[in-house]
Amino acid sequence: MDMTSWQAYLDQHQEQYLNELMDFLRIPSISALPDHAPDVRRAAEWAAKRMQAAGLEKVEVMPTCGHPVVYGEWLHAPGQPTILIYGHVDTQPVDPLAEWTSPPFEPVVRDGRIYARGATDDKGNLLGPILATEALLKTEGKLPINVKFFVEGEEEIGSPSAPALLEKYRDRFACDMVFSADSAQWSEEQPLLFLSWRGMCGLQIDVRGANQDLHSGLYGGAVQNPIHALVRILDSMRSPDGQVLIQGFYDDVRPLSPEQRAHIRKLPHDETRYKRAIGVSDLFGEPGYSTLERIGTRPTLEVNGVYGGFQGEGSKTVIPAEAHAKITCRLVADQDPVRIRELIVAHIAEHTPAGVTVTTQAAGWCTPPYLIGADHPGNQAARAVLEQIYGKTPYYVWNGGTLPANALFHRVLGAYAIGFAFFIDDERAHAPDEFFRLSSFRRAQQAYGMLLQRLRHAEG
Amino acid sequence: MDMTSWQAYLDQHQEQYLNELMDFLRIPSISALPDHAPDVRRAAEWAAKRMQAAGLEKVEVMPTCGHPVVYGEWLHAPGQPTILIYGHVDTQPVDPLAEWTSPPFEPVVRDGRIYARGATDDKGNLLGPILATEALLKTEGKLPINVKFFVEGEEEIGSPSAPALLEKYRDRFACDMVFSADSAQWSEEQPLLFLSWRGMCGLQIDVRGANQDLHSGLYGGAVQNPIHALVRILDSMRSPDGQVLIQGFYDDVRPLSPEQRAHIRKLPHDETRYKRAIGVSDLFGEPGYSTLERIGTRPTLEVNGVYGGFQGEGSKTVIPAEAHAKITCRLVADQDPVRIRELIVAHIAEHTPAGVTVTTQAAGWCTPPYLIGADHPGNQAARAVLEQIYGKTPYYVWNGGTLPANALFHRVLGAYAIGFAFFIDDERAHAPDEFFRLSSFRRAQQAYGMLLQRLRHAEG
Repeated sequence: MDMTSWQAYLDQHQEQYLNELMDFLRIPSISALPDHAPDVRRAAEWAAKRMQAAGLEKVEVMPTCGHPVVYGEWLHAPGQPTILIYGHVDTQPVDPLAEWTSPPFEPVVRDGRIYARGATDDKGNLLGPILATEALLKTEGKLPINVKFFVEGEEEIGSPSAPALLEKYRDRFACDMVFSADSAQWSEEQPLLFLSWRGMCGLQIDVRGANQDLHSGLYGGAVQNPIHALVRILDSMRSPDGQVLIQGFYDDVRPLSPEQRAHIRKLPHDETRYKRAIGVSDLFGEPGYSTLERIGTRPTLEVNGVYGGFQGEGSKTVIPAEAHAKITCRLVADQDPVRIRELIVAHIAEHTPAGVTVTTQAAGWCTPPYLIGADHPGNQAARAVLEQIYGKTPYYVWNGGTLPANALFHRVLGAYAIGFAFFIDDERAHAPDEFFRLSSFRRAQQAYGMLLQRLRHAEG
Repeated sequence: MDMTSWQAYLDQHQEQYLNELMDFLRIPSISALPDHAPDVRRAAEWAAKRMQAAGLEKVEVMPTCGHPVVYGEWLHAPGQPTILIYGHVDTQPVDPLAEWTSPPFEPVVRDGRIYARGATDDKGNLLGPILATEALLKTEGKLPINVKFFVEGEEEIGSPSAPALLEKYRDRFACDMVFSADSAQWSEEQPLLFLSWRGMCGLQIDVRGANQDLHSGLYGGAVQNPIHALVRILDSMRSPDGQVLIQGFYDDVRPLSPEQRAHIRKLPHDETRYKRAIGVSDLFGEPGYSTLERIGTRPTLEVNGVYGGFQGEGSKTVIPAEAHAKITCRLVADQDPVRIRELIVAHIAEHTPAGVTVTTQAAGWCTPPYLIGADHPGNQAARAVLEQIYGKTPYYVWNGGTLPANALFHRVLGAYAIGFAFFIDDERAHAPDEFFRLSSFRRAQQAYGMLLQRLRHAEG
């Protein structure tokens, strides 16, 4: 059988695969809504059946404390690497329903795009590697390397059950590297590789003054106002030009290399359009860095919420008993989220004004930053495949977001994860009228087939 | 008829007066609740009828844009001063109803106290001067001086209609001085005279960044965060030790005189009990001033409320589009509320960080501080009466609160107002189980009778 027969197989089955994707998309597997738990299970069972049909072995729907995880494997390539492919069967909710052109769980194809909740995030992308393994197994009887699947049902709710399951079945999931079918490309014409994701830590600050709201006519001037105390603490954390003033905050931050800066400069970025899109007249950030450098490679401390005292119409002359703020930091290598939270807590203790009590509580994710070298074998293989498909070198992107799964795989399995999927930014993931390009659906199957081949070591 | 016959008249009518007070208290004249507007009118009509019965003339229920005002006069003492007596027929709402021992509008007497909403604030106190004039008119056929009444129905909602009415009928209300039957004494054993009330101005600060809440993974580090901008602005307004840093804020503040400080030092003030009552371990305020000096004689700037971004449980990694704060200042002589608000607006403009738009709007009262000399003839007369009744010199109190009516009478009528009533701090005005001491009810009648006599010029 010639090298391209698995690709011919894919071509011959596109109509069937599209119908199957539509079946998959008809399952309203919204993980955030308890009423839809049976649907998430149904989607997991659908994926398990499809993986089995593809020729994967030991396929199993593994229970967790929450929604199940689907496992499958093909491990008959001794001496070859083992990869774990990650994806998810669950979807975001569909509100606001009225803004959908067609119902979210009644997939339709319009203009070469399939519209449905979950089309690009992540059902269409997840089918890519499953169908690629099918094509290879049906045409060649084997895969070039060893493959395992970890398909979860809780990605959209923060993967709460994944850590315990991965730790419990560490051996089963052991691998040399992870490829995530929940990832993106720059555009239809331009591939990318993510080289980092920022980590995160967060906390809530609770400032308490008197045991009751006080009348400012009776007490104004004689007691500390918790809001004033809070704004003093918050203001002490950042310089006017946007630098974080927590002692030690930047100690473990890797400096940008000239090469990194050069890669970032290559990314198309129209500052005027960028500002117009979010409606600001000026951007603002740490001096000495460009906008994309700030987002991708520098840590932040942001107050996400603040509240205390009177919030209604008009005016109320109260000295409130309490004031609160919620803070998160985006972290970069090699900052440690636990250490950074400790530094912030120490800073708060040092900057607490007289007359109030301040306590803190952890809130939100505690996720280390994730950094992978461009020269990692997984990235080298992915890059070669993307270059072949697109005819272009992928952009290197240091992502400002946070992906706990990457850090999790690295911590538990000791394996790096490479994003390898075909979501494009305009496909309205999490919004009404989510869609996936049929060309990307086909491309995902093709790319995963090529990737498995590329990862095979030359026979010794 | 001897000097004390009007007092004997009062004694003889206490049972009737108490019954009348109970009738008055049965009217649920809650000015804040539109459903109770007819009750406020009924209370005004009740007061008008009672004033007429007392012998006052030209009694009239004057309509306003809101609740009516009751006018009445007795002006047959040529060459003698004319005073305007102020009080109000409206009450606070009664929530939480469940905490009342007996229903708020079913007055009952327990242990020498009459319990009902409005008992001390202000129906019981208002009846004092009305019944005093009755006793004098019935026993002597005349009053020692000329008397007018201004009895409103909107005190508990900030007297919105009073300015226009006073201005329209400036001549009718013209007087030499005002006595307010909506005032207090230090305790049952100790009288006081208020020598000042703080003024007030307020504003809301609205900080706007992007046209939408932004994802801190996608934008964190590249745009100004409106909460950070807001806390910078707010923190710039006050020094760590509690001084207001608005340029020019203290320019017109009268320095404390040694005499004033000596009077304030005389006031009983147990700092330990004071702290325990409000549950704070430390007091806090402008250096160089005692707690009572800070409250009574120094201006403040307090943030009464702050809000922006995420306030729910847990964490949300958002850079909010907006953040808001509400500020009020308590002002002292000779600060001008309009000028102070302008200074704050200018300060905000100067301290607005890059990347956000800040607007302000006036909110809350705009009331000048009110200051009256201890040697004002009204205070001299009141002091003499109080010394006679209590056997003690009244404390001089510089009140930290704000009473717009005082400033209003001064501005429109050119007359100073003297607080002269018998509310005591423990009588739960505005709270469940409001009460008025029957001894204070009797004392109010007595004191107003003596006051009218004291104000009479010696015959030439």
